[in-house]
Amino acid sequence: MTGKFTAELIGTMVLVFFGCGAAVLGGFDHVGQLGIAFAFGLAIVAMAYGIGPVSGCHVNPAVSLAVFLAGRMSAKEMGVYWVAQFIGAVIGAVLIGLIAQTGFASLGQNGYDAASPGGYGLAAGAVFEVVATAIFVIVILGVTGAGGQAPFAGLAIGLTLTVIHIVGIQVTGVSVNPARSFGPAVLVGGEALSQLWLFIVAPLIGAALGALLFRSRLLEAEQ
Amino acid sequence: MTGKFTAELIGTMVLVFFGCGAAVLGGFDHVGQLGIAFAFGLAIVAMAYGIGPVSGCHVNPAVSLAVFLAGRMSAKEMGVYWVAQFIGAVIGAVLIGLIAQTGFASLGQNGYDAASPGGYGLAAGAVFEVVATAIFVIVILGVTGAGGQAPFAGLAIGLTLTVIHIVGIQVTGVSVNPARSFGPAVLVGGEALSQLWLFIVAPLIGAALGALLFRSRLLEAEQ
Amino acid sequence: MTGKFTAELIGTMVLVFFGCGAAVLGGFDHVGQLGIAFAFGLAIVAMAYGIGPVSGCHVNPAVSLAVFLAGRMSAKEMGVYWVAQFIGAVIGAVLIGLIAQTGFASLGQNGYDAASPGGYGLAAGAVFEVVATAIFVIVILGVTGAGGQAPFAGLAIGLTLTVIHIVGIQVTGVSVNPARSFGPAVLVGGEALSQLWLFIVAPLIGAALGALLFRSRLLEAEQ
Amino acid sequence: MTGKFTAELIGTMVLVFFGCGAAVLGGFDHVGQLGIAFAFGLAIVAMAYGIGPVSGCHVNPAVSLAVFLAGRMSAKEMGVYWVAQFIGAVIGAVLIGLIAQTGFASLGQNGYDAASPGGYGLAAGAVFEVVATAIFVIVILGVTGAGGQAPFAGLAIGLTLTVIHIVGIQVTGVSVNPARSFGPAVLVGGEALSQLWLFIVAPLIGAALGALLFRSRLLEAEQ
Repeated sequence: MTGKFTAELIGTMVLVFFGCGAAVLGGFDHVGQLGIAFAFGLAIVAMAYGIGPVSGCHVNPAVSLAVFLAGRMSAKEMGVYWVAQFIGAVIGAVLIGLIAQTGFASLGQNGYDAASPGGYGLAAGAVFEVVATAIFVIVILGVTGAGGQAPFAGLAIGLTLTVIHIVGIQVTGVSVNPARSFGPAVLVGGEALSQLWLFIVAPLIGAALGALLFRSRLLEAEQ
Repeated sequence: MTGKFTAELIGTMVLVFFGCGAAVLGGFDHVGQLGIAFAFGLAIVAMAYGIGPVSGCHVNPAVSLAVFLAGRMSAKEMGVYWVAQFIGAVIGAVLIGLIAQTGFASLGQNGYDAASPGGYGLAAGAVFEVVATAIFVIVILGVTGAGGQAPFAGLAIGLTLTVIHIVGIQVTGVSVNPARSFGPAVLVGGEALSQLWLFIVAPLIGAALGALLFRSRLLEAEQ
Repeated sequence: MTGKFTAELIGTMVLVFFGCGAAVLGGFDHVGQLGIAFAFGLAIVAMAYGIGPVSGCHVNPAVSLAVFLAGRMSAKEMGVYWVAQFIGAVIGAVLIGLIAQTGFASLGQNGYDAASPGGYGLAAGAVFEVVATAIFVIVILGVTGAGGQAPFAGLAIGLTLTVIHIVGIQVTGVSVNPARSFGPAVLVGGEALSQLWLFIVAPLIGAALGALLFRSRLLEAEQ
Repeated sequence: MTGKFTAELIGTMVLVFFGCGAAVLGGFDHVGQLGIAFAFGLAIVAMAYGIGPVSGCHVNPAVSLAVFLAGRMSAKEMGVYWVAQFIGAVIGAVLIGLIAQTGFASLGQNGYDAASPGGYGLAAGAVFEVVATAIFVIVILGVTGAGGQAPFAGLAIGLTLTVIHIVGIQVTGVSVNPARSFGPAVLVGGEALSQLWLFIVAPLIGAALGALLFRSRLLEAEQ
């Protein structure tokens, strides 16, 4: 398990460093919302092909939950993945803070109401996070399942995360990943920390919905 | 057929939620026309690899018509796909309306004349939609046919939809897909609904033209 | 040869319709130079996977010259490809003119001096077109040659055309393809037509340079 | 070795011509930071598929160091690659200067403090370059190693370079490649040359860190 733990830790660190780093260091003024969306997606492409051979590159506790619920991973292994992911996300956020001119004041944290980039409320944010995570999980379980084009999984999953960000950055900044929200929030504190619960609960609910759709065998390739 | 019905319904829902959602929630101000173009294309990439193994990921009645005319699908199966696609598109538009700050007033509907983003008239819109759908169908039938690189189909078809949107968003907002136009139109009503006929008729004509070119065997790989 | 003729005609028509169409119908204001660059590149991706199985998707007389010089195509076949490519490019430009609000006044033509988007002169334009076409041909002959990843050729070649446009749109509008320049020029006339010679000569020289590098066997995979 | 020398020289020339050329000829005003980021990444995609069959397409002394430290290349071969890469980078920068309206005054050089696009200092630049190169090397060694999806390496590595640029252009202009920094610096001189040491030292340190992580076998696919 040591290799998988290391891989998930590094992978989640890179996701946060690249994705949130694009928002903090690149910035809306220079790379725009489309640039940030590609940063999150291409971080997944990078890690899927870089560390995917070791751990499968979940780098997201909601994804690990879905893989567990789909019967493709044990509860114990999911626990190891979760620990690595949360630690990695914090390290990624620390690296951004070390470079950023604003230090640890803003690290790409998620939020709703006044903390939402577009001023979206709790209900809108919750609907978006649940729906987007469920779709994300459907893509992941579909492309890596029976009949799927597994070698393309990194591209397909990464580009799905890009389109999710194109749609939702104005709503919540986009989480769909409790670890990605956890890393910046614990360092920034304040509102980011008090609203963190939503970005843990909503993605996990969405992931469970996506996984249950697969367990129902409705979306498994027919023989 | 249950799996295929579910897959087409979810796939078309996701196409509308991501594509039209990018226009409504991301917006021209934040993601730009290029961002919206990538949202539509990457939604296809996501679904092609996510649900493609189940249904082939048509998520477009014009595509199903072309597949039927090319002799690769029965009329009955096409009917099932059509029903799933129109239902899925409406659900996708409902999800956008639930999140959007403007509610159901604007959901990424298509249009011509005053309803065209760039003020293009009916004739220009009709030419664009027929030509673009015919090209779209040529790519789809080519990459999934004999001698084609089927594992790359999701990327090729999705990125084709992206370039179609780069070219045509100013003209009609880009349909090339009757279901994608139907979902927003039935919820927004008014002009979107009264102009809906064009975005059903033109894509179906374009799809038929593309399919007939294939039936003529001019574009089939030579042995 | 009928299939190959039809495929090259349609492919070049689509390249011009999408690439030049992005400039004319999308426009710098709405899709930007990056959007136009992606439009040209993704048009190649679309056609490489759509008609590639039939003709190899040259859609460019300079590419056909390079393939001929590399000894992979007969002179007679090259002639057939050239005729199809020039006809297709004109049809593509006609389709844009039918839709555009400015009609046939501006169709994405290439130019230097006052006709260069950034005001670049003849020498700068010539250097750029020769170098860029040589690089383009190296990618094409490399990825489709022995040891190359042929199934990825469409993506690699298309994305190469995208980066060429990111670099060079300000210089000449980017040709690297005599047919792509010919289509708009014959319809727009004037300066576009009087400067057309550069966009026929320079890409052909660049293609010959790239092909000769391959004939020297310096860039062939070692056994 | 002649083929490999030629391939690395041409590949590094193309990386600088496209990447730095996008900044100089395309420019922030026209293609934006996202366009420049895609130019660097797609240059790698182009060369990975174009010359990769010949030399493996390192086009970066830091990458060759990592490949050597990972035990996949001899010291002598690394030396040959290094010479080719530095020569190629200078030629690429010369080509830009021949076309650019500002001549050889600005060629996309890297820098810190006043020479950093966003005014970032030496410490921030050093942290960014070390971390980004280490991640870059992890992706390269992972995707090309045992259990990796080697045919996808060009896309994965190129898109990783894109996201690195999205994040870091404001910080240092992004090197992660001593040759890419060397080419413009020796021609521009002044501050670019006096700060060049950082963009040789930091990427080499980052590459060594990434390679050592692989030598530790922590990130090799488990059997």
